[in-house]
Amino acid sequence: MSTFVTWVLLSAILSLAVAAVLYWRIVGLNPGNDIMRELNKAIFEGANAFLKREYSTLVIFVIILAIIITVIPGLGWQTALSFVCGALASGLAGYFGMRTATLANARTTQAALTSMPAALRVAFNSGSVLGLAVVGLGVLGISVLLLLFTQVFGAKLGVTLDQYILGFSLGASSIALFARVGGGIFTKAADVGADLAGKVEAGIPEDDPRNPAVIADNVGDNVGDVAGMGADLFESYVGSIISAMLLGFLAISGVAGADAMKAALFPLLLAGAGIIASIIGIAYTNAFTSSHPHAALRNGTFISAVLMAVAGFLLVGYFWNDIGQTWGIAIALVAGLGAGTAIGLLTEFYTSADFRPTRYISDASRTGAATNIISGLSVGMISTAIPVVLIGLTILIAYAATGGFANNAMGLFGIAVAAVGMLSTLGVTLAVDAYGPVADNAGGIAEQAHLPSGVRAITDQLDSVGNTTAAIGKGFAIGSAALTALAFFAAYSAKAGIGSIDLMSPVVVISLLIGAMLPFLFSALTMTAVGHAAQEMINEVRRQFNEIPGLREGKEGVKGDYKTCVDISTAAAIKRMILPGLLAVAAPIIVGLLFKYLELAMNGGQNLPNVAGGAEAVGGLLAGALASGVMLALFMANAGGAWDNAKKFIEQGGLMSEMRNRHGDDWQGEVMKDLSPVEQENYAKYVSSETERVTGEGGSFDKAEADQTRDDFIVAQLSKGSDPHKAAVVGDTVGDPFKDTSGPSLNILIKLMSIVALVFAVLFK
Amino acid sequence: MSTFVTWVLLSAILSLAVAAVLYWRIVGLNPGNDIMRELNKAIFEGANAFLKREYSTLVIFVIILAIIITVIPGLGWQTALSFVCGALASGLAGYFGMRTATLANARTTQAALTSMPAALRVAFNSGSVLGLAVVGLGVLGISVLLLLFTQVFGAKLGVTLDQYILGFSLGASSIALFARVGGGIFTKAADVGADLAGKVEAGIPEDDPRNPAVIADNVGDNVGDVAGMGADLFESYVGSIISAMLLGFLAISGVAGADAMKAALFPLLLAGAGIIASIIGIAYTNAFTSSHPHAALRNGTFISAVLMAVAGFLLVGYFWNDIGQTWGIAIALVAGLGAGTAIGLLTEFYTSADFRPTRYISDASRTGAATNIISGLSVGMISTAIPVVLIGLTILIAYAATGGFANNAMGLFGIAVAAVGMLSTLGVTLAVDAYGPVADNAGGIAEQAHLPSGVRAITDQLDSVGNTTAAIGKGFAIGSAALTALAFFAAYSAKAGIGSIDLMSPVVVISLLIGAMLPFLFSALTMTAVGHAAQEMINEVRRQFNEIPGLREGKEGVKGDYKTCVDISTAAAIKRMILPGLLAVAAPIIVGLLFKYLELAMNGGQNLPNVAGGAEAVGGLLAGALASGVMLALFMANAGGAWDNAKKFIEQGGLMSEMRNRHGDDWQGEVMKDLSPVEQENYAKYVSSETERVTGEGGSFDKAEADQTRDDFIVAQLSKGSDPHKAAVVGDTVGDPFKDTSGPSLNILIKLMSIVALVFAVLFK
Repeated sequence: MSTFVTWVLLSAILSLAVAAVLYWRIVGLNPGNDIMRELNKAIFEGANAFLKREYSTLVIFVIILAIIITVIPGLGWQTALSFVCGALASGLAGYFGMRTATLANARTTQAALTSMPAALRVAFNSGSVLGLAVVGLGVLGISVLLLLFTQVFGAKLGVTLDQYILGFSLGASSIALFARVGGGIFTKAADVGADLAGKVEAGIPEDDPRNPAVIADNVGDNVGDVAGMGADLFESYVGSIISAMLLGFLAISGVAGADAMKAALFPLLLAGAGIIASIIGIAYTNAFTSSHPHAALRNGTFISAVLMAVAGFLLVGYFWNDIGQTWGIAIALVAGLGAGTAIGLLTEFYTSADFRPTRYISDASRTGAATNIISGLSVGMISTAIPVVLIGLTILIAYAATGGFANNAMGLFGIAVAAVGMLSTLGVTLAVDAYGPVADNAGGIAEQAHLPSGVRAITDQLDSVGNTTAAIGKGFAIGSAALTALAFFAAYSAKAGIGSIDLMSPVVVISLLIGAMLPFLFSALTMTAVGHAAQEMINEVRRQFNEIPGLREGKEGVKGDYKTCVDISTAAAIKRMILPGLLAVAAPIIVGLLFKYLELAMNGGQNLPNVAGGAEAVGGLLAGALASGVMLALFMANAGGAWDNAKKFIEQGGLMSEMRNRHGDDWQGEVMKDLSPVEQENYAKYVSSETERVTGEGGSFDKAEADQTRDDFIVAQLSKGSDPHKAAVVGDTVGDPFKDTSGPSLNILIKLMSIVALVFAVLFK
Repeated sequence: MSTFVTWVLLSAILSLAVAAVLYWRIVGLNPGNDIMRELNKAIFEGANAFLKREYSTLVIFVIILAIIITVIPGLGWQTALSFVCGALASGLAGYFGMRTATLANARTTQAALTSMPAALRVAFNSGSVLGLAVVGLGVLGISVLLLLFTQVFGAKLGVTLDQYILGFSLGASSIALFARVGGGIFTKAADVGADLAGKVEAGIPEDDPRNPAVIADNVGDNVGDVAGMGADLFESYVGSIISAMLLGFLAISGVAGADAMKAALFPLLLAGAGIIASIIGIAYTNAFTSSHPHAALRNGTFISAVLMAVAGFLLVGYFWNDIGQTWGIAIALVAGLGAGTAIGLLTEFYTSADFRPTRYISDASRTGAATNIISGLSVGMISTAIPVVLIGLTILIAYAATGGFANNAMGLFGIAVAAVGMLSTLGVTLAVDAYGPVADNAGGIAEQAHLPSGVRAITDQLDSVGNTTAAIGKGFAIGSAALTALAFFAAYSAKAGIGSIDLMSPVVVISLLIGAMLPFLFSALTMTAVGHAAQEMINEVRRQFNEIPGLREGKEGVKGDYKTCVDISTAAAIKRMILPGLLAVAAPIIVGLLFKYLELAMNGGQNLPNVAGGAEAVGGLLAGALASGVMLALFMANAGGAWDNAKKFIEQGGLMSEMRNRHGDDWQGEVMKDLSPVEQENYAKYVSSETERVTGEGGSFDKAEADQTRDDFIVAQLSKGSDPHKAAVVGDTVGDPFKDTSGPSLNILIKLMSIVALVFAVLFK
C-alpha cells in the first residue's frame, strides 16, 4: 500500500510545486504603469480583506463542528481531524487561487501590450495555479490521512475509509458552502450596490475609481468565479475520490481472492494519473499558445483527456484484470470523462448568442420585459432536459458496464469511477475555467488605465473566450456535482446498513417531498439575501460620499474607504448565508433523528427491519434534494447565462445582423414590415418630427432623407439603449442572482447534504 | 353489496337532480337589458364553439386510445369501456358547468340591481351546478360500472377494481389534461391577444365589443377557471375514490375474517355521504346569504365539513370496528378534510395583498421590473415550504394512525382515505371556487352595460371575495392532486407486483431524475405555447379590422366574427397541447418498456427479482415527477397570484396607504425621505417645472403650492400608471401563464402519469 500511496503523494507534491513555480513567475512579471499597479493593489487588498473576515468566521464554525464530531459516539477525534484538514485544504486552495488571480489581472493587461499569446499565458497560468492547487491539496490530504490512520495509528482500512476520511470531504463541503453562497452574495451585492450607488445615484461612470464599491465589485468577480468555483470543484473532486475508494472497498470485500485494498487505492491512483495528465496539458497550452486562444485552451484539455484515458486503461488492466473487470471499469471511466465535456458543450449551446435559444430571448425582448422574462425562464426550463438524460445515460453506462445489473455493489463502484473520470483532469479544466475572470478583470484595467485600443482588443478576445469557458465550467460543475452527490448517496446507502430505501414506504416519499422542497427554499433565501446585501452596500457608499470631503468630486489624493465596502459586503454575505447554510447541514440530521424516534415510538421501541425509519427517511431526503436541486441548478444557471448573452447580443447590434442574415440586402425594408404596432407608432412620430426638422431648416424631405430616417430609426430601435435593450437589461438583472448566487450554490447544497448524511449516518441507526 | 351501491347511486342521482333544479332556476332568471343579453349570448355561443371544436378533436383521441387498450393483453374491452365512460363523464361535467356559468353571468349582474344576497345566490348556484355535476357524475360512473362488471357480467371484485374501473380514472385524466392545458393556453392567448390587438394596436378600450377577441377573452375565463378547474378536480375526486377502493380491498384481502368487499365499498360510501353533506352546505348558503358574502360561503363549506366528519365517524364505526381500525381510519379522514382547508388558507396568505409576501412584491416594484420579478420568484419559491410540510404531515398522520408502521398495506389505505376525506365535500368547495369567474364576468358586464354604480359596487365586492376563493381553490387543487397522485402511486406499487422501488438502485435514481425533469420541460412547452397562440390571435384581429368594413369604427350593425377568434384560440390551444400531452402519456410507457427490455438484455432474458427493471423504473419516474411537479405547481401558482395582487394593490393606492399606516399623519414627509435616487431626480425636475408654470402664470411658488406639488408627485409616483405600477404589470404578465397555464397543468401531469402507469402496469412485468 505504502508504495502506491507514495507515488500518488509524489504526483500531488509535483502538482503543488508546478503551481508554486507558475505563481512565482506571475509575481515576477511587470504589473504595468502606476494606475494599473494601484488598481491591482486595491483589488488584491480587497480580496485579502474578504478572506480575513471570512476565515475568522469560519474558524469558529470549524472548531464547534469538530468538537461535536469528536464527542458523537461512533465518530471521534479521527473524523474530526480529517474534517479540520479538509476545511484547511479547501481554504488554502481558495486562498492561493484568489491571491494569484488578483495578482495576475494587471500583469495580463501589461502582457497584452506585447502580444495576445503572452497575455493568454499569464491569465491561463493564473488559472493553472488554482487548478493545480485544488488537485494537489486534495490528493495530498487524502493520501497523508490514509497513511496516518493506517500506518501510524494502525487503524483498519475499512474504518479509515468508512469513517475517518469522510471527515475530509465534510470539511471541504462546509468551506465550499461558505465560499459559494457567501461569494455569490458578495459579488452580486457589490455589483448591484456599486451600479446603483455610483452610476445612478452619484452620476459617475461605471468602474470609476472614486466609487469605493467598485473595488468590491472587482473583488467579487474573483471571490465568486475563482474562489467559489474552486471550492465547489475541490469538494466534488475530493468527494468523488473518497466515495469511490469506499465503494471500491465495499464492492471487492465480498469477492473471494480479490484484494480490497487495491480496489480502495485505485481511485486515488486514477487521480494521481490525472494530475500528471493535467500538468502535461497545461505545459502544452503554454508551449503552443497560437493566435487562437480558444483552440489553445481546448487542445490542452483534449490532450490531458486522451492521456488520462490511456493512463486509465493501463491502471485498469493492472488493478482489475484478476477479477475480469477490465473493460467495465475502463468504460465507466471514459463515460465520465466524456460526459463532463458533453454537458459543458450543451451549456454553451443554451447560453451562447451563437445558438438559437439565446437569440430567441433577444428576439422576445422586442415585445418588452415580460416576454424577455418568460422566454428566458422557458429556455432555462427546457435546458434541463438533455443534460439530465445525459447524466442518466452516464450513470446507466457505468452501472451496466461494470455488471451492476447482476452485482449492485460493483455497479455502484462503476458510477463512482465515472465521477472520478469526469473530475480526473480537473487540474487543467479548472485552469481553463479560472482563466476567464482574470481576462475579464484585465480588460477592465486596460479600460481604466487608458491603454491603446489594441490592448483592449486583445483582452476583449480573451474575455469572449472566457465567457464560453465560464459557461462550460458552470455546466461541468453541475454535472460533476450530480455524479458526486450520487456517489455519496450510494456510499450512504451502503454505510447506513439499510436493506433498501423503498419508495413504496410513505416515510421515504414524505422525506423525498421535503428534500425536493429544500432547493426551492434555499434559492429563495439566497436570492433575497442579494437584495438586502446590495441595499447595505448602497447605504455605505452614500455615507462615504457624504462624509469624506472631495471624494465625490475626485479631488487629488482623496481615496474612498474601499476596505469598509469590502468588509460590509463580506459581513452581509456571511450573515445572510447562515440560514441557508444551517438548512443544508441541519436538514438531514433533523429528518434522520425525527423518523428514527418516530419509528421506535410507533413500534414500542423496536427497530423493525421492514419498516422505514430514520436512515431510510434521510435517503429519501437526499434523493428529493438531488432531483429538484439538479433541475433548479441547470434552470437557474442556464437562464441566467442566456439572459446575460441575449443582452450582450443586442448591445453588439445582433438584432440588426439577424435581420440582415434573414432578409439579405433589403433587410431594412423587411424590418419595417415586421414592426409591432408600438414600433409603427413610434416610427410615424419620428418621421413627422424629422420632416418638421428638415423642412424647418429649409430643406425638403426627399427619398434620401426618408431612407436615412428609416435607417436611423432601425438602429435606435434595435441597439443599445433601445426598448428591446432595456427589456434585455431586466432579464440580465434577474439572471444575475440566478447564475452567480442561487444556481451555483445548489451544487454545494446537494453535495453537502449527502456528505452530512454520510458522516452522521451512525446517528440514524 | 348491491344495497350499499344503491344508496350511493341514489346520492349521486340526488346530486344531479339538485344540479338540474339549480340550472333551470338560473335559466328562468331575467338576463337583463339588451346589451346584457347580447353580451351573454356572445359569451355563451363562444363557449359552445370552443367545446364543439375541443370535443370533436377529443373523440378521435378517445377512440384511438380505447382501441389500443382493448387489444393490449391483460387489459381488454372492460377497461376500454370504463375509459370511454370516464372521458364522457368528465366532458359532461365540464359542459354543464361551463354552460351554466356562461348563462349566469348576466343574470348575476341583473340580480345585483336588487340586492347583494340575490346576486351572490345566482353566482354561487352557478358554481353549485358544476360542483354537484362533478361529484354526481363521478360517483354515478363508478357505481354503475361496479354494478355492471360484478353483477351483470359476473366479474370478480378484485379484477374489477384492479383493472376495469381504473379505465374510468384514465378517461377522466385524459380529458382533464386537454381541458386544463388547452383551456390554459386558450384563456391566456385570448387575454394577451385581445389586449395587444385591441388596446395597443387599434387604440380601442379594454373589453370593447368591437374587438372580436374580447368575447374569446370572456370565454377564456370560463374555459380556464370553470371547465379546466372542474375537470382537474373531477379527476382528483374520481382518482382518490378508485385508488382508495383498490387499496382498501388489497389491505383487507390478507386479514382473516374481514370482508374485503366492505373495505372496497367504504370509500364510495364516504363519497356518497360527502354528496349529502355538500347539498346541505349549498342549501345553507342559499338560505343564509347575509351581507357578508365571504362569511356565507365559508359557513356553508364549514357546515359540510362538520357534517362530513360526523357521517364519516358513523360509517367508520359501522365498517371498521370489526378489525379494530375505527380510530385510525377516522383520524385519516379528518386529517385529509383539514389539510385541504389549511393548504387553501396558506395559498391565500402567499397571494393576497392583505399579507406580507404580496406587499413585499409591490414594495419591490418601486425599484423596477427586475426587483419585482426577483421578489415574485422568491415568494413563489418560499411558498412551497409550508404546504409541502403540511402535505407530508397529512400523509404521516394518515399512515401512522392506521398502523402503517406495522402494516404497510393498511397505512397506504389510510393515505388514500385522507385523499378521499380532502375531496369528499368537493360538491360545495368546487361551488365556492367556480362562483368566482361568474362574479368576475358579471362585473365586466355591469361595466359594459353602463349600469348604476351601486351594481358595480356589489359585483366588485363579490369579485374580491371570488379572488380569495380562487386562490384557495388553486391551493386545494394542488394539495388534492399531490395526495391523489400519491394514492395512485401506492396502488401502482401494489399492482405492479414489485417487492420494492429501491432508491439504492441506479435504475430508480436515473428515472427519478428524468421524472423530476419532465415538469420543467412541460412548463416550458406550455409557457411558449401561450406566446405563439397569442400571436395567431393578434393576426386574426388585424385581419378582421382590415377586411370587415366599419368594424373598427364601430358602425351600427357591423359585428366582428368572434366565432373565428374563438375557433382560432381553440385550434391553437389544441394544437399546442399535443406535445406536452404526449409527453405525459408516453413517458411512463417508454421508460417502463425501455428498462424492462434493458434488464432482460443484461441478464440473458431473465427477470431477476433483486434487480430493478421496467416496473421499478416507472416507480422512480412517478416519484421524481411528483416531487418536482408539486414544487413547480406551488411555485408557479403562488408567484403568479402574488404578482397579480401586487399589481392590483398598487392600482388601488396600496403603496400610499402602506406609507400612511407606517408613518401616520406626516406620511408624505416620510415618503420623501425614502425616495430612491431616481425618484429624487424626478422630483427635482417636477418641482422646477411646476415652479416655472406657477411663476409663468404670474403666481408665486409658496408653501401651499410646494405641498400640493409634493402630494401630486407622490400620487403620480406610487399609483396606477407610475413606474412601480409599470414594473408590477411586467410581473403580472409573467405571472399569467404561470398561474393560469403552466402551474395548474402540472396537477394533471402528475396525476395522468400515475394513472397511465397504473393502467399499463401489465406491460412492464
